[in-house]
Amino acid sequence: MSSYEPTERTRVRRKPGRGSYDRELVDRVLDEALICHLGFVEDGQPYVIPTIHARVGSRLYLHGSKASRALGALGEGGDCCVTVTLIDGLVLARSALHHSLNYRSAMIFGVAGRVDDPAEKAIALEAVVEHIAPGRSGDARAPTREELDATEVVSLELQEASAKLREGGPIDNAEDIGLPVWAGQLPLSLVPGEPAAEPDLPPGLEAPGYLRSWRRP
Amino acid sequence: MSSYEPTERTRVRRKPGRGSYDRELVDRVLDEALICHLGFVEDGQPYVIPTIHARVGSRLYLHGSKASRALGALGEGGDCCVTVTLIDGLVLARSALHHSLNYRSAMIFGVAGRVDDPAEKAIALEAVVEHIAPGRSGDARAPTREELDATEVVSLELQEASAKLREGGPIDNAEDIGLPVWAGQLPLSLVPGEPAAEPDLPPGLEAPGYLRSWRRP
Repeated sequence: MSSYEPTERTRVRRKPGRGSYDRELVDRVLDEALICHLGFVEDGQPYVIPTIHARVGSRLYLHGSKASRALGALGEGGDCCVTVTLIDGLVLARSALHHSLNYRSAMIFGVAGRVDDPAEKAIALEAVVEHIAPGRSGDARAPTREELDATEVVSLELQEASAKLREGGPIDNAEDIGLPVWAGQLPLSLVPGEPAAEPDLPPGLEAPGYLRSWRRP
Repeated sequence: MSSYEPTERTRVRRKPGRGSYDRELVDRVLDEALICHLGFVEDGQPYVIPTIHARVGSRLYLHGSKASRALGALGEGGDCCVTVTLIDGLVLARSALHHSLNYRSAMIFGVAGRVDDPAEKAIALEAVVEHIAPGRSGDARAPTREELDATEVVSLELQEASAKLREGGPIDNAEDIGLPVWAGQLPLSLVPGEPAAEPDLPPGLEAPGYLRSWRRP
């Protein structure tokens, strides 16, 4: 099992027992989360922007328009922090202060770089489509060279990362255990509804199987 | 209907048609999201940390331990960016490039300040508990003065904020509409499972109604 080397930036200081540097756990959290929150600095000001990501091996791809402030700033080589968070449930303790959430999160630090090679851009975009709905890239029309040229893709090597997770029930103070207050967990998950087809589809097209059985990994 | 004044930081530059400065929309997104992603800068490095928040009127509260790097940095008065994002569904287009997500997000800029008054800290913590599960603060044991003293609370006035949302089906190029590719939306929502009680509850305690009917607003 391979691990990231903790650094000053990634060392989990608050509740270190919840921290992990395991690459497989970081990968799993990245792959399950539909979006990441991308942090960067412009003129000293932090920005946090939600965006779709995709992982290909040890490389994380983000894409957007050439007009994007975030990707523009990243493409110039500034430090960034990419955080993804999955919410797994509510934690209800006897005491107000010990209420919490169960979650899994991953945080990646690094310097992103612009991807200029159209072949690598195509791989990144295919990964983004597969990230949203595995199986989908076999159906969707692949991007043209013009579309690839108009799309900004940046990538970030996964080399400085950590994960953090909380699971299980509340941790109440010993003297609160006997209180007549219900305590426990409420599990939460992201659940799909019914696929809604566009009104102008050719007749006879059914929602594909990968969509009808869509679940996060 | 009151609105925020757009600023250089909050003006939605990418797809401005999806941007909004409506206070009510920002409030709704903040209230529905269980967590926020808090961005701050330390020694030039951006950090993005997931944390629970709660809104009380036009004030946003974040809380954590005194050991928290994020709250320590915020308490010293640095600029921050708080972003919350709700994922509403997958958007499957005929072409790979037009795949997207439906979402609602809010982004708040400002300088946070440490809350020292125990009475205001108590209000903030009650708001956090109510934020997770409305109705819960009537049951949970309220914090003691010692617990309040050991808890770091920071607050941020909502005065520079924007929201962004995408809804509806894919926007394909006209020439792709006739392709034999299913296109449409897959709605997603955060759904609760069955409450799981702690094994050491006093006998006869049932999961409270606000938990059994838990839904985001």
